Amino acid sequence: MFCLPEKKAGKFLYAAIYEELKKQIESGAFPAGTKLPSQRTLGTKLGVSVNTVRTAYTQLELEGFVEVRPKSGFYVCNMESLQKIGSQRGNPMLTPLEKQCDQNPEEAKNNFVPANVAIDFAPAAIAKEKFPSTQWYRCLRSCLEDPRALERTPPQGDLGLRQILADYLYTERGVECTPQQVILGAGTDSLLEILSYILPNQWALAMENPVYTKAYRLFSRMGHRVVPIQVDKQGVMTEPLEGLDQLLVYTTPSHQYPLGTSMPVGRRIQLLNWAGRGKFRFIVEDDYDSEFRYDAKPVPSLQSIDQNERVIYLTSFSRSVAPALRLSVMVLPDSILKIYHETYKDFVCRVSTLEQLTLGEFIRRGFFESHLNRMRTYYKNKCKRLLQGLKPLRDTVDLVGELAGQHLTLQVRNGMTEEQLWSSALDVGVRVYPVSPFFMTDFPESSMVLLGFGGLKDEEIDEGTKRLVMAWHK
Amino acid sequence: MFCLPEKKAGKFLYAAIYEELKKQIESGAFPAGTKLPSQRTLGTKLGVSVNTVRTAYTQLELEGFVEVRPKSGFYVCNMESLQKIGSQRGNPMLTPLEKQCDQNPEEAKNNFVPANVAIDFAPAAIAKEKFPSTQWYRCLRSCLEDPRALERTPPQGDLGLRQILADYLYTERGVECTPQQVILGAGTDSLLEILSYILPNQWALAMENPVYTKAYRLFSRMGHRVVPIQVDKQGVMTEPLEGLDQLLVYTTPSHQYPLGTSMPVGRRIQLLNWAGRGKFRFIVEDDYDSEFRYDAKPVPSLQSIDQNERVIYLTSFSRSVAPALRLSVMVLPDSILKIYHETYKDFVCRVSTLEQLTLGEFIRRGFFESHLNRMRTYYKNKCKRLLQGLKPLRDTVDLVGELAGQHLTLQVRNGMTEEQLWSSALDVGVRVYPVSPFFMTDFPESSMVLLGFGGLKDEEIDEGTKRLVMAWHK
Repeated sequence: MFCLPEKKAGKFLYAAIYEELKKQIESGAFPAGTKLPSQRTLGTKLGVSVNTVRTAYTQLELEGFVEVRPKSGFYVCNMESLQKIGSQRGNPMLTPLEKQCDQNPEEAKNNFVPANVAIDFAPAAIAKEKFPSTQWYRCLRSCLEDPRALERTPPQGDLGLRQILADYLYTERGVECTPQQVILGAGTDSLLEILSYILPNQWALAMENPVYTKAYRLFSRMGHRVVPIQVDKQGVMTEPLEGLDQLLVYTTPSHQYPLGTSMPVGRRIQLLNWAGRGKFRFIVEDDYDSEFRYDAKPVPSLQSIDQNERVIYLTSFSRSVAPALRLSVMVLPDSILKIYHETYKDFVCRVSTLEQLTLGEFIRRGFFESHLNRMRTYYKNKCKRLLQGLKPLRDTVDLVGELAGQHLTLQVRNGMTEEQLWSSALDVGVRVYPVSPFFMTDFPESSMVLLGFGGLKDEEIDEGTKRLVMAWHK
Repeated sequence: MFCLPEKKAGKFLYAAIYEELKKQIESGAFPAGTKLPSQRTLGTKLGVSVNTVRTAYTQLELEGFVEVRPKSGFYVCNMESLQKIGSQRGNPMLTPLEKQCDQNPEEAKNNFVPANVAIDFAPAAIAKEKFPSTQWYRCLRSCLEDPRALERTPPQGDLGLRQILADYLYTERGVECTPQQVILGAGTDSLLEILSYILPNQWALAMENPVYTKAYRLFSRMGHRVVPIQVDKQGVMTEPLEGLDQLLVYTTPSHQYPLGTSMPVGRRIQLLNWAGRGKFRFIVEDDYDSEFRYDAKPVPSLQSIDQNERVIYLTSFSRSVAPALRLSVMVLPDSILKIYHETYKDFVCRVSTLEQLTLGEFIRRGFFESHLNRMRTYYKNKCKRLLQGLKPLRDTVDLVGELAGQHLTLQVRNGMTEEQLWSSALDVGVRVYPVSPFFMTDFPESSMVLLGFGGLKDEEIDEGTKRLVMAWHK
């Protein structure tokens, strides 16, 4: 059947077995329906205990690669039927497809993607192999000598890093703040958790529809009423907000998630004016991929043109540094900062001290800036290539959001439904992502899909678009 | 006035100014009432911008070292009056003293401790300088070669580490679990956040009274009803629980926080039997300092003797490794794990990948075990020394919790109130911690204070106890 790679043998036996089996299943070497050897047989063959094999099998079962058939044994799952199982037992608000979009693309790949997907246009994927790990580790090593590396930072994060970030945000995004306004969190979700924790329950949250679904779930779980607000071509609409107070508007103006639209300055000013007209009106500006804009004049951030201290600014380093870096940044206006200090400040900062110090060095030595410059060109070229490949479809496809980030949205007018679009793509081994799972209400009439290009090689983009043209061409 | 240390000059100018001023204030070189130079004057003198000085002053103000007097300038605060300011503007549930106990002792030291405290028996302090950082960094360096170090782990944490932890918990605490039941979080608060998030709102939480107050706040903020349950000498009482269902009992049986009592086996079995008699009764066992027990036969963990899968087990590496390590562990029974998978699994793991891998190596190579063995002896000796120093008070003092962890509780029967105890200690430059802020209700009639010994040198313990004997001797 298979042998344990020798070097792994002494280490995590069960993990090695798990990984090997997963590889066999993913590669198609063990197709759906294959019966795995009994735990005892495999244990004896590999010279490990039955318990070790059981742990590996259980993990595979949990992740949906294999299933138990009572009184018979473990069998490789049919991955298509897995999706349906997922949606039955999962959170009713999340379809399996939404989970894929929402998730770390790695996990999505491992857990849900049918074995026959050759090219995955996962929207959150980035080119991890381009990360300058040598420079990063050089910074990290120099921080090991810092005695602070083994200490906790203050609850908001290391003051030195917060100063560096305040400077960086000012230079890059015009965000004006002192380091005292900066709060570091272990990822954007973690910061949204803090925000939903500290704000009074009677404050409602207006969310763009469609939206980053985890933000929606976090706030509603914390007891905040969530009001969906429609998005037009300029972004979140302001008319529905009139008359509402004690309200936070969550928005992704740089690159609407998932639609990809960028909010023009006019709409930004409307939104800021709305906020300025009430005492308890705030805007959460999630600037999640603003480092990657490919047009000449990026629109200024809401925070930078705000006159009334009504913007809570959020950004993350997951896309610009590495997905492993659990470090996001929130800038609070003074009135919200006051609430934070009263209710949350004595909780411990969640971010690794060493990684805080390392990021500070990485920015201070200029490595971050050169990395960003390189990656802007890199992603711009990937995006161009994707657009080039889609050209044969130009009569039936409208593009949105192609000037930023690592994904774009296609509105396809060839008569196919959204489901037909992604399922016909799947038939030719290409995964694209439906947009409707991101809607809380008012599902779109047009057929839209998301395509990410950040994690794909040139050849994959070429081959993927060729297949899409085939599948969708009428 | 003062000069910037030369090596810092190029780095974080404002942080250097802030640190220098703080040092001058803490050392007493700038006593209360001293007027700081104007921002412009200091800026010119140091050759930095007014903004840089302003940032430093604002941070000092925020932390309560200085105050603004309108139309006059910044003045060094009187630290005694600072406490009152803190309690007025803070969360009404938290007294400044409670904040100190609750907080990272470093921050407590920096933010609240009056300048005249010579010896601080902070309950959460540990001997950080004893941490084997050479071995830790050796493990860390070897993990840098692991390509996984730049990748996200699965939401529950790295599978290899979870296997190591499952083995470790079994060996050390008899906790029986598979790695699939293990969830890693960025500190215990972060795991309690997950728990309070995933459990249905109608489930109430029964908490020991007194209690770890952050757990109380997290659960009640998430909308769970919190029921205080009295603690007797054996720990949380089970009679008040009878008849209650859809209930989670949060408890610290190894070393009740803050009282220090250890729950005997009889009470443990009562508690487990209570849980077994209802379908929705669970126990959260927070085993926060169980690595440090100094008696011969530690009581088994609740999880290890549970027959009905009713225990949610929590432990942390903040005390046993380093406070900077944001890594805690939760073991879920299958029924709660199912809820977790349905509602939370797609959130990203908050713990640094590199630190996960490093901890795995640190345990695997045996460094953790030898560190623990060394530290058990170390803390045991500190504790002995503290008890020795308190001997002259033996007729009026009862001790609780001296066989575990890094703190103990004194019940003092010399006629002084709790406030008289800690304030008379403060008069002789010694900080001890009142117990009553940890109570939600039914404040104790007896006078109790907490003394931590983990972070103190032998001479400090000797001097501190000498002063306490002086202050409390009747």
